[in-house]
Amino acid sequence: MAESMQGLKRTHRCGELSMKNVGETVTVMGWVQKNRNKGGIVFVDLRDRAGLLQIVFEDEEELMAKAAKLRSEFVVAVVGTVVARSGAVNKNMATGEIEVRASELRILSESETPPFPIEENSKTKEELRLKYRFLDLRRPDLQRNLMMRSRVATLTRAFLAEEGFLEIETPTMIKSTPEGARDYLIPSRVNPGTFYALPQSPQLLKQLLMCSGYDRYFQLARCYRDEDLRADRQPEFTQIDMELSFVDVDDVIDVNERLLAKLFKEVLDVEVSLPIPRMTWQEAMDRFGSDKPDTRFGMELKDVTDVVKDCEFVVFKGAIENGGSVRGINAGGQGSMPRKKIDKLVDFAKDFGAKGLAYIAIHEDGTVKSSFGKFMKEEEMTALIEAMDGQNGDLLLFAADKNKVVWDVLGNLRLEIARQLELLDKNEYKFLWVTEFPLMEWSDEQGRYLAMHHPFTMPMDEDIPMLDTDLGKVRAKAYDIVLNGTEIGGGSVRIFNNEIQSKMLELLGFTPEQAEEQFGFLLRAFRYGVPPHAGLAYGLDRLVMLMAKQDSIRDVIAFPKIKDASDLMTEAPAAVDTKQLEELGIEISKPAEEE
Amino acid sequence: MAESMQGLKRTHRCGELSMKNVGETVTVMGWVQKNRNKGGIVFVDLRDRAGLLQIVFEDEEELMAKAAKLRSEFVVAVVGTVVARSGAVNKNMATGEIEVRASELRILSESETPPFPIEENSKTKEELRLKYRFLDLRRPDLQRNLMMRSRVATLTRAFLAEEGFLEIETPTMIKSTPEGARDYLIPSRVNPGTFYALPQSPQLLKQLLMCSGYDRYFQLARCYRDEDLRADRQPEFTQIDMELSFVDVDDVIDVNERLLAKLFKEVLDVEVSLPIPRMTWQEAMDRFGSDKPDTRFGMELKDVTDVVKDCEFVVFKGAIENGGSVRGINAGGQGSMPRKKIDKLVDFAKDFGAKGLAYIAIHEDGTVKSSFGKFMKEEEMTALIEAMDGQNGDLLLFAADKNKVVWDVLGNLRLEIARQLELLDKNEYKFLWVTEFPLMEWSDEQGRYLAMHHPFTMPMDEDIPMLDTDLGKVRAKAYDIVLNGTEIGGGSVRIFNNEIQSKMLELLGFTPEQAEEQFGFLLRAFRYGVPPHAGLAYGLDRLVMLMAKQDSIRDVIAFPKIKDASDLMTEAPAAVDTKQLEELGIEISKPAEEE
Repeated sequence: MAESMQGLKRTHRCGELSMKNVGETVTVMGWVQKNRNKGGIVFVDLRDRAGLLQIVFEDEEELMAKAAKLRSEFVVAVVGTVVARSGAVNKNMATGEIEVRASELRILSESETPPFPIEENSKTKEELRLKYRFLDLRRPDLQRNLMMRSRVATLTRAFLAEEGFLEIETPTMIKSTPEGARDYLIPSRVNPGTFYALPQSPQLLKQLLMCSGYDRYFQLARCYRDEDLRADRQPEFTQIDMELSFVDVDDVIDVNERLLAKLFKEVLDVEVSLPIPRMTWQEAMDRFGSDKPDTRFGMELKDVTDVVKDCEFVVFKGAIENGGSVRGINAGGQGSMPRKKIDKLVDFAKDFGAKGLAYIAIHEDGTVKSSFGKFMKEEEMTALIEAMDGQNGDLLLFAADKNKVVWDVLGNLRLEIARQLELLDKNEYKFLWVTEFPLMEWSDEQGRYLAMHHPFTMPMDEDIPMLDTDLGKVRAKAYDIVLNGTEIGGGSVRIFNNEIQSKMLELLGFTPEQAEEQFGFLLRAFRYGVPPHAGLAYGLDRLVMLMAKQDSIRDVIAFPKIKDASDLMTEAPAAVDTKQLEELGIEISKPAEEE
Repeated sequence: MAESMQGLKRTHRCGELSMKNVGETVTVMGWVQKNRNKGGIVFVDLRDRAGLLQIVFEDEEELMAKAAKLRSEFVVAVVGTVVARSGAVNKNMATGEIEVRASELRILSESETPPFPIEENSKTKEELRLKYRFLDLRRPDLQRNLMMRSRVATLTRAFLAEEGFLEIETPTMIKSTPEGARDYLIPSRVNPGTFYALPQSPQLLKQLLMCSGYDRYFQLARCYRDEDLRADRQPEFTQIDMELSFVDVDDVIDVNERLLAKLFKEVLDVEVSLPIPRMTWQEAMDRFGSDKPDTRFGMELKDVTDVVKDCEFVVFKGAIENGGSVRGINAGGQGSMPRKKIDKLVDFAKDFGAKGLAYIAIHEDGTVKSSFGKFMKEEEMTALIEAMDGQNGDLLLFAADKNKVVWDVLGNLRLEIARQLELLDKNEYKFLWVTEFPLMEWSDEQGRYLAMHHPFTMPMDEDIPMLDTDLGKVRAKAYDIVLNGTEIGGGSVRIFNNEIQSKMLELLGFTPEQAEEQFGFLLRAFRYGVPPHAGLAYGLDRLVMLMAKQDSIRDVIAFPKIKDASDLMTEAPAAVDTKQLEELGIEISKPAEEE
């Protein structure tokens, strides 16, 4: 049976003790990591969130007997004296120079044998760990991640408060808007047949706060999207969300660069050199085939359309005739890549929509092997290699298709080769602003233009006339912040004018009635004096994931859900009482699937 | 048409300028509060969140003409020079000693005439203001409230981080538990027929975080309750939520007293003298008839059961014979209260369940008038007046019933009289800890005991044996923090032992199967080593409401909902597309009510 901690008061966390405390009497409390008997002396490694501490039980027989019975994950309180280690110093332990000689031991809580060991870099299947998340969360690596997340949140808030931002909470039971991803709905009991939605972001509400004169707003806002989950998505996630009045692009970028520099300095001791480079969307696509380029390495795309435009290779010719392009990357030093590996790259390219992948392997001796050599004149080949800056030992890879496909294929191929060559260093942090995004994106599926960011993004001043003539070419005052090839945040200057906003909604296919029904309150607000405003939102989960060098956002979220959006620990979602549904005035139309 | 702010950069907020800035060229931006023409000079009061600033347009005719056209709520940018006021200093304005002589004016956004004036202490009907919340939020008093709220949040977070608390986000799409208030539900699309619930609080999850060794947790957590709304409730509200490991009651109280003292000092410049007084629940009921006593004034309850136990007044006698009590309060100096006013107090008492209210009015000349004098012997009357410390000019009021009714009646009567006598000073802040709450509360309605706080509250060590013998008498290690008669927070030491927790759930009427289904993960967690832990949660909305001296939490929430839980601005909740419901596998069983 558990003992009480009455009369005891913890003086230190385990991991906080050091040589400075030698001679002090301390009271520590924590979990038994392990327990070993060595020459009649009992050694216990005690664990809390600050780290491990070695406790020594010797001399007193009753105490030693009690200590010998401790098992993993028992919770104990220990009173003792800090001493320099008698045995060898443990350099793998922050407290490795000291140990605590126990004079009192209380067992506060016993433990059954856990279903898996509590250890760093656990090899246990994630499903089991998520079912017992409360145990998984004891792992020091997960604890470090969540402590880092807490620190990032604290620093962000302190910085933004210092910069004059107000933290204002916006409601999470709002009106459903069909634009964007799928909403999670909440049936109303008071007005049966009507629903609230959980917000996909506080976008409209933060814009209203600007209308209301709050000047600078921020919130670490919970956001919700009912999407088919990919590895890196959660049904609920957190944004560092901000909005500023009386600003243009540069003002938003300035304050955010300083925020990022502060976070990386204080959390990781990494200097972010400012200003962060900027690149237009067009340049990013042309050079990296991606709107979120990983600039930790080169291997940039080159447009060789002009070089090959007269050649007889039908793949190139056809693409160009269809208004597309031919572009290549130079995988430097990979000229002797075996055919099998090249074939795998071709398959990889096909996954991204390529019909094939043309290549030129330049051997160390200068001889050339190419998948399309026979269709090219020798001088055409030479010109192409020269355009690609091909040296002996290089591998040149080409895609020919519509621009969109070419960018996507080569952009991803570039990353794949970098992964294979281990060019991606998690300790290197390369930031990049991508600016001047297209305002609209044509959807073949829907046969209409969709907003690339959202319907409230301001077109660039000089492009406004093209709204009526060449919509696809209009650029937006939008910007994304990219870190090592991941978009960690994005935002835009907003439309703050009723007429332009109405026009945008019209271009996006809203009838005036639909616009009024869904965004009526915003359009109404725009009638009463609106300041120019702009904002930005970070995906906090993703940002912390990168800072903590993790591969999944599940490793920086305390209680994550799995791909089907269920929680393995609590077994949510679950069936509910019929009475609850009756009160809400809803019925289940499909029977729940049997397991 | 709106002008661009291009080329301009705001240098100050309007309200930030003072005599120190005289001579500087500044650029300010904001909303036109008013505009007047005086002797050919145009004066504009410009408003932003920092305050009002007087702008003067003179000399330049074009500029003056443009300024003369400005109307309320236009958004403008002004470049000008700060000068000491030529006219009278305005002591009602923080910037009243200066004005800005404009050299440039740009109209960034025009405004229609707002549906109501933007002014402090608005007289406009709340419904209209909530419909146009984006305009209502421009009122300086609401802006001060939300700025105070932001500051309270910032200070709270900084303090708790400093104290070693980690901010950890818990999920808001969780499993529904029928215990407590009604849950808001979210249908799952992936598993049709199942539901998530929005959390009523992060209670179980924060306890799991203690199981997982996070030691000190906090979160400004959004919580949800689908209740029939009273004036002071919202469907979603915010808690300052915390939990601590390896602590007992005193540790929680200590850190929270320092938090409160810091908040009141930094936000209101009010010294909270520590330690805050503590009172057991029993004493609070006996002395104040309330578990959240307003201790800004006396008028305490006195138990006179013993004094009147032998009298012939049937009301007193009957109550005592039924196991109840007779108690009174002394409304000092109210002995000459007119009969009509006394009758109103009787009606008030009846609203709280009293069958009547007995009184003794002691006139200034020492004569006595009483509603029950004829049933009492003279010496009984004298003894009663003496017991109540009745002096000439006092009014003594008595209730006789079951204790619960007597407390409730006199506790509320005491407050009502204090309100009438204007004894309640909003500038006085009286804190009080109420401790040792009953663990359980008998529900006549449900015919069983209910948890007074929640099912995870630890009984007091010495009362544990009574769990089996006298459940109603068991006290809990629970504590509420009360400010001026409002409970602003509460918490408890938690059960951290599987057997006691299972027993509690059993006492609350859970079958083992129900306990497993709903709290299985908690009971499972309790098998693997749990630290003693305790916590507390504040209602942030209510705390800020009191600090801002407001009467409604709607005045400290940016976008509040009204009593039927709807949002007058966005018109949520609303009907949704049939397609959305089909995807969720639900149908509406009641037709939506017509408006």
